[in-house]
Amino acid sequence: MEALPGPYLLFLGDTTEAGYAKTAYGLRDWAPNRCLGEFACEGATVTTGLRFMTPAEAAAKGARSMVIGVANAGGVIPEAWLGSLLQAMEAGLDIISGMHVRLGEIARLRNAAAGLGRRLIDVRQPPAGITVATGHARSGKRLLTVGTDCALGKKYTALALARAFSQHGVDAHFRATGQTGIMIAGSGIPMDAVVADFAAGAAEILSPDAADEHWDVIEGQGSLFHPAYAGVSLALLHGSQPNVVVVCHHPGRQRMLGHPGYALPSIEETIALALQLGSRTQPAIRCGGVSLNTAHLDETAALRLLASESDRLGCAVADPMRGGPAFDRLVEDCLA
Amino acid sequence: MEALPGPYLLFLGDTTEAGYAKTAYGLRDWAPNRCLGEFACEGATVTTGLRFMTPAEAAAKGARSMVIGVANAGGVIPEAWLGSLLQAMEAGLDIISGMHVRLGEIARLRNAAAGLGRRLIDVRQPPAGITVATGHARSGKRLLTVGTDCALGKKYTALALARAFSQHGVDAHFRATGQTGIMIAGSGIPMDAVVADFAAGAAEILSPDAADEHWDVIEGQGSLFHPAYAGVSLALLHGSQPNVVVVCHHPGRQRMLGHPGYALPSIEETIALALQLGSRTQPAIRCGGVSLNTAHLDETAALRLLASESDRLGCAVADPMRGGPAFDRLVEDCLA
Repeated sequence: MEALPGPYLLFLGDTTEAGYAKTAYGLRDWAPNRCLGEFACEGATVTTGLRFMTPAEAAAKGARSMVIGVANAGGVIPEAWLGSLLQAMEAGLDIISGMHVRLGEIARLRNAAAGLGRRLIDVRQPPAGITVATGHARSGKRLLTVGTDCALGKKYTALALARAFSQHGVDAHFRATGQTGIMIAGSGIPMDAVVADFAAGAAEILSPDAADEHWDVIEGQGSLFHPAYAGVSLALLHGSQPNVVVVCHHPGRQRMLGHPGYALPSIEETIALALQLGSRTQPAIRCGGVSLNTAHLDETAALRLLASESDRLGCAVADPMRGGPAFDRLVEDCLA
Repeated sequence: MEALPGPYLLFLGDTTEAGYAKTAYGLRDWAPNRCLGEFACEGATVTTGLRFMTPAEAAAKGARSMVIGVANAGGVIPEAWLGSLLQAMEAGLDIISGMHVRLGEIARLRNAAAGLGRRLIDVRQPPAGITVATGHARSGKRLLTVGTDCALGKKYTALALARAFSQHGVDAHFRATGQTGIMIAGSGIPMDAVVADFAAGAAEILSPDAADEHWDVIEGQGSLFHPAYAGVSLALLHGSQPNVVVVCHHPGRQRMLGHPGYALPSIEETIALALQLGSRTQPAIRCGGVSLNTAHLDETAALRLLASESDRLGCAVADPMRGGPAFDRLVEDCLA
């Protein structure tokens, strides 16, 4: 996997709604060392709080690329952004995008990149040369976050665990499987864009042989119970061969996001199925604990829930965003 | 799904080994009405037994395309075939290929097709516009063949069941998920080439809403136990929402094909996992019986094995290629 050219200048487009800037916020929060500052079109009101600088200023400070840190309603690159993107390339920056549309499909960008010798990098484009999974056992240790559903904290949990492992003196890498994670890590494979036959093979490439005490902490995708994405989740589970899974859940969510006809599985069902299916390629698989997204609860309610769920499930239950003793126990149980 | 232009002229290249002509044999055996004759380069010794005719003769008899019915060791289209392929296009035929290499990547073919107004059809190319699976229940009935492993009879079992259903007066369609199956059916979706996020969605499109008594008989892919392809198998299972699964097995096979580090699951384990996982999108899923590939056994041994396995498993066990009362019972149990 080739590394993305950093450090980044974060581009916020002409965005006025914070909800569209999740990628920029994720980069600011999880990869501050890769982010030099932010840039935006006139009219933008969203900010990451990082210093505003022009592409030329960023390039002078060592920036190597400008990252499109926002989405918009259509999932496309609007005409209004093109001037800023061209300005960045003229200043010497490559452009990085996690959007569905390919940068090179836009003629003005393609021609400018060719003329200036800049790269247009679509992180949703899987690398060439992905092969069918071998199923061979690999050295090193791996942790995979698995979910009761999509969009409830698998990426943040993996990032928080990788950071905590490092703080415990453990050699650990976060391994990204989605576009925002890839920008944060600087490399990774977009599992959702890999051809189905090669998805488990992509997961094998993502977490290769490593030193015995090294941990790869892998961002999960989807859910083994998801009517649309379970195949992706299973390929990622099989290819990752995780020693440890951490189950991620959003307390109170009753129905699958976007698929309200499907009830959410319980945490216990999710642990059981992950271990059952994961044992096919990793016989020593175990559950390290549970991560709950308690952002919607106040501190008292959250801590009470974490404690009662830990009692009920008989394992570590933490909200990585709250940290504290519960999270310390989760980290210890994963590394045990 | 667009239908492939038939009837076909089968092209055998310069092939001298029968093992490379599986696609041509499959078409002759399962789609005789779509096959007008065969054509080959000088030096070919393999034949389907169909009448030899030039592309011009085939076109005069109504052929609309020439199908590449052979593979070769490299999986590529050798220089020696190009004259024949050009000859076919000049005679008015489109070219259909199931090989990995895209026909349009060969400049002489691409230019000739453009000049003559012919189509180069790669059946390994999934159709455009595949969407994420909805998980919505569909009308009509569906059967999916599932395997203990790859390459042990899932396509032939589905073809035989679809044919038998029709012979019983049941309105049934074979639904193809691999290149040979697609040429036999005249349409289908190559599951192995669909981007992972859309694989279950592709399966939904492949077997759409139908009349209540209509059966789609869907060609399975891979195995839920396969270290490389289980994700594809699960996406196909979830998207197909089968009322009935038929488990396919090759008696005596002990290890996964190409993955000898992995033991084959038992038939019972395969039934149990298919029902467990399939019930997520199809709560009424049941096992209709078992299909054994007994081509390597003599008649007496085969019939003895089918009977003893039926006793042991408590369900219909047949070899669709042998037919007989065991297969009749399998058909009846599937339709019950």
